[in-house]
Amino acid sequence: MKAALRAYVDGFANGDAESVIALFAEDAVVEDPVGTPERHGLEEIGKFYRDAVESGAKLVLDGPPRGSHGNGAAMAFTIELPALNLTIKAVDVFTFNDAGEIVTMRAYWGPDDMTS
Amino acid sequence: MKAALRAYVDGFANGDAESVIALFAEDAVVEDPVGTPERHGLEEIGKFYRDAVESGAKLVLDGPPRGSHGNGAAMAFTIELPALNLTIKAVDVFTFNDAGEIVTMRAYWGPDDMTS
Repeated sequence: MKAALRAYVDGFANGDAESVIALFAEDAVVEDPVGTPERHGLEEIGKFYRDAVESGAKLVLDGPPRGSHGNGAAMAFTIELPALNLTIKAVDVFTFNDAGEIVTMRAYWGPDDMTS
Repeated sequence: MKAALRAYVDGFANGDAESVIALFAEDAVVEDPVGTPERHGLEEIGKFYRDAVESGAKLVLDGPPRGSHGNGAAMAFTIELPALNLTIKAVDVFTFNDAGEIVTMRAYWGPDDMTS
């Protein structure tokens, strides 16, 4: 799971949205940020990550990704959006299926976690 | 929500388990770490936090707590357990009710997030 989280960060670093999208299961759900409508399935999730990577977003980890005793993992990072002169501090929480694919990603950040 | 998360950290810092327990709703659920049995209600949760605070555990934040656009918040920190010469890197995820009380806390950390 931690390898997947590191690949997720690396995908942004390398401007490679497809490597990020490839981490997700076909029927995955993304809620980013928590409290907004979910994106369901690889078509909606693919568009979300292609747009995000294309925007130039980079993820700078606060510390190492964390695992669990189950199928969950989480990491805290700062999203840097230089094109918008914006940073967002987020915690992303992931669950995985038995194939090691991400089935849910929920991003915890709110209006006051953004600075410009 | 962020004030509650800071009070949670401060409660450990001050050795004041009751101030931590007071943040929780009567019917709250704690899963720490994720993948282990849940603790339900203030009696089980109270015992858990009294034991944790009594052990001398302190929480050192990786970065500021994060909110959301809903009722969730999260923070990443290192748990220092000097009595056991142990540290645990965790991400805790919280949900809140309308009264501002914690209703769920799920802690993401696994065996390889511990160092001694």
